[in-house]
Amino acid sequence: MHSAIANLTLEAPDMIPAPTELSADDGGRSMHRFVTELYPICRSITGDGVRKTLDMILEHIPLTICEVPSGLQVSDWTVPLEWNIRDAYIKNSAGERIVDFRACNLHVLGYSVPVHTRIGLSELREHLFSDPQHPDWIPYRTSYYKPAWGFCLPHRQLLALPEDEYEVCIESTLEPGHLTYGELVLRGRSSGEVLVSCHICHPSLCNDNLSGIAVACALAQHLGREKLRYSYRFLFIPGTIGSITWAAIRRSHLNHIKHGFVLTCVGDKGSPSYKTSRRGDAEIDRAWTYVLKQSGSAFDILPFSPFGYDERQYCSPGLNLPVGCFMRTPHGQFPEYHTSADDLSFVNPASLSDSVAKALTAIDVIEQNRKYLNQKPFCEPKLGDYGLYSSIGGRSAGDFQMAVLWLLNMSDGTNSLLDIAARCNLPWKTIKEAVRALGEAGLLKPVEELT
Amino acid sequence: MHSAIANLTLEAPDMIPAPTELSADDGGRSMHRFVTELYPICRSITGDGVRKTLDMILEHIPLTICEVPSGLQVSDWTVPLEWNIRDAYIKNSAGERIVDFRACNLHVLGYSVPVHTRIGLSELREHLFSDPQHPDWIPYRTSYYKPAWGFCLPHRQLLALPEDEYEVCIESTLEPGHLTYGELVLRGRSSGEVLVSCHICHPSLCNDNLSGIAVACALAQHLGREKLRYSYRFLFIPGTIGSITWAAIRRSHLNHIKHGFVLTCVGDKGSPSYKTSRRGDAEIDRAWTYVLKQSGSAFDILPFSPFGYDERQYCSPGLNLPVGCFMRTPHGQFPEYHTSADDLSFVNPASLSDSVAKALTAIDVIEQNRKYLNQKPFCEPKLGDYGLYSSIGGRSAGDFQMAVLWLLNMSDGTNSLLDIAARCNLPWKTIKEAVRALGEAGLLKPVEELT
Amino acid sequence: MHSAIANLTLEAPDMIPAPTELSADDGGRSMHRFVTELYPICRSITGDGVRKTLDMILEHIPLTICEVPSGLQVSDWTVPLEWNIRDAYIKNSAGERIVDFRACNLHVLGYSVPVHTRIGLSELREHLFSDPQHPDWIPYRTSYYKPAWGFCLPHRQLLALPEDEYEVCIESTLEPGHLTYGELVLRGRSSGEVLVSCHICHPSLCNDNLSGIAVACALAQHLGREKLRYSYRFLFIPGTIGSITWAAIRRSHLNHIKHGFVLTCVGDKGSPSYKTSRRGDAEIDRAWTYVLKQSGSAFDILPFSPFGYDERQYCSPGLNLPVGCFMRTPHGQFPEYHTSADDLSFVNPASLSDSVAKALTAIDVIEQNRKYLNQKPFCEPKLGDYGLYSSIGGRSAGDFQMAVLWLLNMSDGTNSLLDIAARCNLPWKTIKEAVRALGEAGLLKPVEELT
Repeated sequence: MHSAIANLTLEAPDMIPAPTELSADDGGRSMHRFVTELYPICRSITGDGVRKTLDMILEHIPLTICEVPSGLQVSDWTVPLEWNIRDAYIKNSAGERIVDFRACNLHVLGYSVPVHTRIGLSELREHLFSDPQHPDWIPYRTSYYKPAWGFCLPHRQLLALPEDEYEVCIESTLEPGHLTYGELVLRGRSSGEVLVSCHICHPSLCNDNLSGIAVACALAQHLGREKLRYSYRFLFIPGTIGSITWAAIRRSHLNHIKHGFVLTCVGDKGSPSYKTSRRGDAEIDRAWTYVLKQSGSAFDILPFSPFGYDERQYCSPGLNLPVGCFMRTPHGQFPEYHTSADDLSFVNPASLSDSVAKALTAIDVIEQNRKYLNQKPFCEPKLGDYGLYSSIGGRSAGDFQMAVLWLLNMSDGTNSLLDIAARCNLPWKTIKEAVRALGEAGLLKPVEELT
Repeated sequence: MHSAIANLTLEAPDMIPAPTELSADDGGRSMHRFVTELYPICRSITGDGVRKTLDMILEHIPLTICEVPSGLQVSDWTVPLEWNIRDAYIKNSAGERIVDFRACNLHVLGYSVPVHTRIGLSELREHLFSDPQHPDWIPYRTSYYKPAWGFCLPHRQLLALPEDEYEVCIESTLEPGHLTYGELVLRGRSSGEVLVSCHICHPSLCNDNLSGIAVACALAQHLGREKLRYSYRFLFIPGTIGSITWAAIRRSHLNHIKHGFVLTCVGDKGSPSYKTSRRGDAEIDRAWTYVLKQSGSAFDILPFSPFGYDERQYCSPGLNLPVGCFMRTPHGQFPEYHTSADDLSFVNPASLSDSVAKALTAIDVIEQNRKYLNQKPFCEPKLGDYGLYSSIGGRSAGDFQMAVLWLLNMSDGTNSLLDIAARCNLPWKTIKEAVRALGEAGLLKPVEELT
Repeated sequence: MHSAIANLTLEAPDMIPAPTELSADDGGRSMHRFVTELYPICRSITGDGVRKTLDMILEHIPLTICEVPSGLQVSDWTVPLEWNIRDAYIKNSAGERIVDFRACNLHVLGYSVPVHTRIGLSELREHLFSDPQHPDWIPYRTSYYKPAWGFCLPHRQLLALPEDEYEVCIESTLEPGHLTYGELVLRGRSSGEVLVSCHICHPSLCNDNLSGIAVACALAQHLGREKLRYSYRFLFIPGTIGSITWAAIRRSHLNHIKHGFVLTCVGDKGSPSYKTSRRGDAEIDRAWTYVLKQSGSAFDILPFSPFGYDERQYCSPGLNLPVGCFMRTPHGQFPEYHTSADDLSFVNPASLSDSVAKALTAIDVIEQNRKYLNQKPFCEPKLGDYGLYSSIGGRSAGDFQMAVLWLLNMSDGTNSLLDIAARCNLPWKTIKEAVRALGEAGLLKPVEELT
């Protein structure tokens, strides 16, 4: 077991080559293209679909691929057998494929054991999954830990199935192998880390979660070009078992995680939402809240709940990491969730681009956030002498002026930039300009240098 | 004085015989019958009406009757002379009883001194009390501490009184005697007590407070059949002077009171309301708040105020007990309050039954409330292995599933079941089922055994 | 520098002669008359206009006049040269005064350097200030710290100026002199002080801030007739540089300031508003909030912001004094702000009078606010025995009764009168009556005598 973990050591690339640019500058089109390329692959929590996906991510960012062997005990769980699938179908007695894995990989119950048999309608029905509320869509269903086989199909089709002898075939394998995930660390000045995590285990579903993969890649590309305060750890992992596995083998490292968020459902047309970490008022929670509030558009701040994505693992009581979750429409609140309707048309370039922009701003807040001390704390300094005040008195103050005054007033060593920005509710850009100007004027100094 | 107190020692019955069942299971009809039986008795803060009432309560629960002698100093008060009344009337010059105590005991100003004289209308009027806002109802008035006599009558009748010579007669006695109250202690595993208090000093008034007596009796019967964590102390006492007397002679015992509530006005058709203790966030306050919130119907949580019922004594600054007050429509907020219209038709079986049910749930929350420790706090345990998770993934979680997740997530030793239940806002029944299942699975353990 | 400060020592008058009464009892008419007298004077942050203003204040209250020499370094600032002006105008080629300082002193850019020259329209325009949004009003503009000259005029007039050769003349002087302010200390039993500050640097502008001067004078007159707990320090100072100068030379004294507020814009018809100190929950903040809430009319409580009047100096992080700001319509929220329309018709006697009344109540709350101990804390005392309870029971409680009960219940040594008054939301008058009655009954005693 130790040797199994040994080969997981990651190497942090000093420079990131970015062969294919995913920046937000093209209105999100390159990200949507990447989603389109990833869409057809049949992913699950293990197997070649995951490897293929990570290979494609590697074309954008220098990922380290990690393979964890089946059977490894990770906390209360065991890394499962590796699942792969070549083909699957239901044929009617006329030999026609009426349900065909090659047409849509959602048709197969995830982790189905292999089967090849002929059965009547009533027996077949025990293995069929549909969604009566959306009779034209194929639902997404899995059975990772209870051996089973099954097919998912539109409810309308299920209802119309005639009595017949059906040939069912699932050419899958469940064998000792590996759980595969990708990890990228961008080294900053501090060994403190920001965790950005997305899952890579869903088959042909776009918003949940190819959108998260694309946005995470774009963030990594962007941050790779910056001088960073924090180190950034990007995880591309199977949901649940992936984060549990990672947290188990990285247990001693987790105290380095200072901030973090999960990325999921970030490509739909809904307004942005952020679900706070279990702590509720972690710095990352306050940063996202400020950023979404400042955007001037609709947004939601959702309190932590132990249901959702991998934040439920990161926020389990024994870890309690300051990790929230950034989404647009939250899981389960759009009818297309976990169905074939979560397809390429459900995610759009503009939303992907906006998600990247908002995440970069939240990250910038965390990067820049520190406490300053007003160097002239007894009454206001004579700002005009520093070129920081209009010489003609009697008029109202603009945003920059107000930012200068707020920063001076609140920088008593107890308030951080984020505290001040949230209090005065001014744009982050303005706050940063004012901090720079006040620093250059010698009026603000950091309480302590970055540790 | 010491010997006077000595004979007040209570004996806690080990078993409760329940000759007459008052359970909520009959839709409240047995409670309403009990109210009907109690209704005609002329009660006051002392006297045979109180004794008769306690005797009737004894038919349902094994009460200990306590007699405290007139003249005993209790805090800033003195136990008053005992008041009894045999008859009272106003006769006109034709000898007709135009106001008759035998028709309605509200007609006499409570604690009226004896009088028998003939007077004219204008002198009589100085002794008459009516309520111009509700001209057909007899108001309820008392003069416990200033010697006085008087009659209460409908305002319409008062206005119509002709000039005449009237014979007024009140056959009352005010003599050294006792203040009488009833007390019942149900012993639980802990010496910590839950106080349930209701007043028994109102004459023919139903919601205020025969309803409280009936509900308290039903609670005591129910709890007498249970194995209890806490001990329960039920008080059936005259309002104000009764609780003051009890608190004075039980001063050294008061630190055993861990939770408590006053029961009053619990039979009208209004929605339930709970007035918090002076502390405002005592465990009992949070338990009632959670229970009323969970009910799914309208309710009110009223902040503490020093006006009201005996909670104002229990919550005086020197005692500051965690004792709130459960009501339906609060005193003074229904026009029938303290008038003859607070009669048998004003209270209804369904409300009495609902009051018992809600109180039992609040008590159950207090009984079960403790802190647990998640035994697998690093990420989620593999719930499927314990039969605690649906094997088919991809669907939303139901209440039980959510309760399991919340309990695991928040059971870090700092949150009690009530904290968790209030946070996730799931039904108490579901929380308890999930606690039991998690306990059986070995995933939750109490932080400490009950002390 | 030391000698310059030495002569600033103030003498506290023992008695206040009040040659001209400004009480609120005349419906504010005397205050409005005072505003009318002050209106024509051309004030600025230094100069004879300030001296003249202080002389007129001296007719009402015994002010100490302080002169601080130009060039004195005060914190990050320097006391500026003294500015005086005799005349100013723009003449057209026909020799007509088309803009005339003698008609309205707002016409001159405050602190204009002297100029006398002939120029064409385009050059002239670089020195003209107008407000396109209110084309008939003269805006108020200054250039204290950047040498400049200019004229302010209605936008309509500016647009209509023809091509011409104009004679511009500003007969001003900028010479070493003094910054002048007035200070009055009313000695109370405590050396702890309440600061009341208003600015005296605005020329012909009424609400901002002749209203503040008049209200401050009326407060000082009123308080001069009272026996006071706190000492009261009234400041009549030039805005910004005045408070900065005062705070710099009084630095070692500032720890005596226990409460305070700035008075400005207190004469318009708007509802009252109070901007809290930087602390947000200082006693003075809670006192004003309670008083405005109790008034029963519309009001606003504004959170602290570092823009506004001299509270931004008093609340700079190095001082952080508990000083808020009482206004009616806040600066910048009425279109007349800093224009010629803030004239005598914009302030009215009733608002001035109401502002005095509200400030006196807030001050009375601070004066009376202390903690008491209920002397009979175990249950309620028998209030009837002290004449504090109606002898006829069964009715609702009035305000006085409720105040008695709240005071007894909350007076456990941790709650002040203000805490209790705010909690029960009863009128201050009633609270005071109840405190007096309870004190006379021996039921309430102050926790500690005034220190």
